[in-house]
Amino acid sequence: MNNLPDINQTWFQCISCGHKVSLLENKTFKCTTCSDLQRVEHDFNHGWNKSYKNTTSSLTPMGMSGVWKYSGLNGIIMPRFPQEYMISLGEGNEPILEIGSRLRKWLGQDVDLRIMLQGMNPTGSFKDRGMPVAISVASALGIKAVVCSSTGDTSAAAAAYAARAGIQCYVLIPEDREDTSVVQWHQPDAYGAQTIVIPGRFDDGMRVVQEFADNGLVYLVNSRNSLRIEGHMSATIQIAENFGWNMPDIIAVPVGNGSDSTSVGQGIRRLLDLKAIEKGSKILGVQVASAAPLYYSMKKASTENGDVTESSWNSCFEVHSPGRTVATAMNIGNPVSRKKVVHEIIRSNGGMEIADENELLTAMDLCNKDGIPICQHTAVVLVGIKKSLQSGLISKDDSIVCISTATHMKFPEILPRHRKMDMVIANDCRTDTIAKIMNL
Amino acid sequence: MNNLPDINQTWFQCISCGHKVSLLENKTFKCTTCSDLQRVEHDFNHGWNKSYKNTTSSLTPMGMSGVWKYSGLNGIIMPRFPQEYMISLGEGNEPILEIGSRLRKWLGQDVDLRIMLQGMNPTGSFKDRGMPVAISVASALGIKAVVCSSTGDTSAAAAAYAARAGIQCYVLIPEDREDTSVVQWHQPDAYGAQTIVIPGRFDDGMRVVQEFADNGLVYLVNSRNSLRIEGHMSATIQIAENFGWNMPDIIAVPVGNGSDSTSVGQGIRRLLDLKAIEKGSKILGVQVASAAPLYYSMKKASTENGDVTESSWNSCFEVHSPGRTVATAMNIGNPVSRKKVVHEIIRSNGGMEIADENELLTAMDLCNKDGIPICQHTAVVLVGIKKSLQSGLISKDDSIVCISTATHMKFPEILPRHRKMDMVIANDCRTDTIAKIMNL
Repeated sequence: MNNLPDINQTWFQCISCGHKVSLLENKTFKCTTCSDLQRVEHDFNHGWNKSYKNTTSSLTPMGMSGVWKYSGLNGIIMPRFPQEYMISLGEGNEPILEIGSRLRKWLGQDVDLRIMLQGMNPTGSFKDRGMPVAISVASALGIKAVVCSSTGDTSAAAAAYAARAGIQCYVLIPEDREDTSVVQWHQPDAYGAQTIVIPGRFDDGMRVVQEFADNGLVYLVNSRNSLRIEGHMSATIQIAENFGWNMPDIIAVPVGNGSDSTSVGQGIRRLLDLKAIEKGSKILGVQVASAAPLYYSMKKASTENGDVTESSWNSCFEVHSPGRTVATAMNIGNPVSRKKVVHEIIRSNGGMEIADENELLTAMDLCNKDGIPICQHTAVVLVGIKKSLQSGLISKDDSIVCISTATHMKFPEILPRHRKMDMVIANDCRTDTIAKIMNL
Repeated sequence: MNNLPDINQTWFQCISCGHKVSLLENKTFKCTTCSDLQRVEHDFNHGWNKSYKNTTSSLTPMGMSGVWKYSGLNGIIMPRFPQEYMISLGEGNEPILEIGSRLRKWLGQDVDLRIMLQGMNPTGSFKDRGMPVAISVASALGIKAVVCSSTGDTSAAAAAYAARAGIQCYVLIPEDREDTSVVQWHQPDAYGAQTIVIPGRFDDGMRVVQEFADNGLVYLVNSRNSLRIEGHMSATIQIAENFGWNMPDIIAVPVGNGSDSTSVGQGIRRLLDLKAIEKGSKILGVQVASAAPLYYSMKKASTENGDVTESSWNSCFEVHSPGRTVATAMNIGNPVSRKKVVHEIIRSNGGMEIADENELLTAMDLCNKDGIPICQHTAVVLVGIKKSLQSGLISKDDSIVCISTATHMKFPEILPRHRKMDMVIANDCRTDTIAKIMNL
């Protein structure tokens, strides 16, 4: 472990009191002084510059991964982390696609909107960007077992990357199958993790694993472990790079536990600090109506002219009891990273919106019909973008990137339940029968 | 259409008699002289060289797509095809991952084996490499409707890319749901295609759409349309590039209709012709036991010392009636591209193998437990590799790339049916209860 970054090179820093601890030693993932959340920070005095080209072989983690490609001594993600410890399943490098005509029509305005398809990852979700960093550090530290609480995507990513690293993985999944698709249910087990089914919900499992982490019993890979956010930031670096280091005006993200908005916010600030970009993006965070504690507390904290401060927003926050939604991964009443979400949205001069079930199913349907295979969580964000265009929070001249968190293939129950298939049943297989159906 | 490539730049060429026809005019996708299959050929006299760097913006099809990145005047795929007609959903650029320890142990030898995860594509399968080329040409030609017969992956890709191009898509899907997963069943409809359910099997649908194509009634996007193979070849170009233009000794592919082996073979020959590589790879084609007409006809055609000629193999071929298998996409008794498969495997000095159900389920299980999310069709190939190592067809010193055609997420029924989940059910959500389960 001698070549791992020391506390002067890479460290966990408390988001409240600024206290620094070593990421080689701190395994509670909270400040040892004030118990608040942390973020990963690095010394960049070695001089990062964006013209650096990664020429590593595409057959190695650093050459193939859309996370590790931004590492290395001239890198921006985990710059001092040695190549030999990098675990990868070839994640990242997702396309950022212009929307299609049906969605454009639904939005009602001819906006410059692109969707970053983070579902095109090994386990099918954006979690594959943060997990390789958390698991690689765990592996480098000689950790033998990792744990997470999850209804689906986190556990799939944790299991796959832990398997890749040869580490035992435990996942706590709620017994109530409403919030977990059949694919999500089977993924951790298929990837060799030990699934523990709990008679409770995500928040119950979260409480348990946080307590394990508090006592240093087992290595936590939920997003309280800010190495997850560090890896996840690579998506924002890719946006910057793909946009020629001129950020889009808006980055719109779903808000569940808050790791997306946190990683985008931190990514933008790191790029600004390094003078890689001149201007950041505003963050639009969108919650689903069944669990929108951050949206409602922001509303409550806003003054009449719409101003809101970090402290007033935080003081208005109340835990919600989640309802039912198809956007299961966002059905979280007590977001783990809520303070970070508040911080990043305020700092970016962004805002929040909310989406109801009918609206999000319409958005998903239209976007899929344009050929773009998004999931229901991405649809939540699209609804938020539409509402923000109407309210003026987003201008029609703004360039917008919508983060798509997963592929719809992860949720095979959603389409059969919520869409009536428009199919024709042929009476026979004769050419003229089929030709007639097709009006040939 | 004036700037589309003319017949002296890009053309369909008959694989038997060599007759050339224009791809702007021929919409039957068979030789107008002898009715045999075609391949796409180009004039490369403008001088391709591999040091060419594509510097197009990552927000355009040519900049983001792992297919179109190899196009352009200095390119190797559709070199004269204009950028303005390129349709893309950000396909390609998949990682080529070293296998894990469980699979290595099962293989019984410490081989240099990597898996190319072509499931990490927009619609979840390798079909997303060939389809953008077929659909882009259709769109450039002003085609209003495309059709395919498919049990799953082809129809998903056809529907998504047609939607992206604003073209109507019709898909013929067998009513027998055994060969089509719930995800595959819903994908074309979700992407806005008209699903036509036929009371027959894949081969019945294929007969109908071939007849449509013979009569020029509608634009066919099954792989008889060799523009599909042209796009698909980009995977082989990527392998060459990722391996530093020194091909692996073996490329192992599943054989259903035969588009994989065809595209790999043609890709290798184009690279050799252009002197981009000095030595090709041998192609190992693997069929599943339920439908292995090419494997058995090769066996039958082989002399005592194992030699086989193209003509003897072809003359021994007999259509099979497929049985049942989890490898549904490979359950094809009369492969569309069989003559091409024979041609390419013979020319590459490769061979064939066969996999039974138990073996392939074991291979899938072990590979997934290593964290690599392959589907059952990929597992067929892994079994073929193991057998070939045992038979000596592959040497333990050979470098091998196994093509993984789809993500297991496309097949949500497979895991529940064929694996017993190893899960623990906790009696309550107390920390000490969970800690006990985890032996903390």
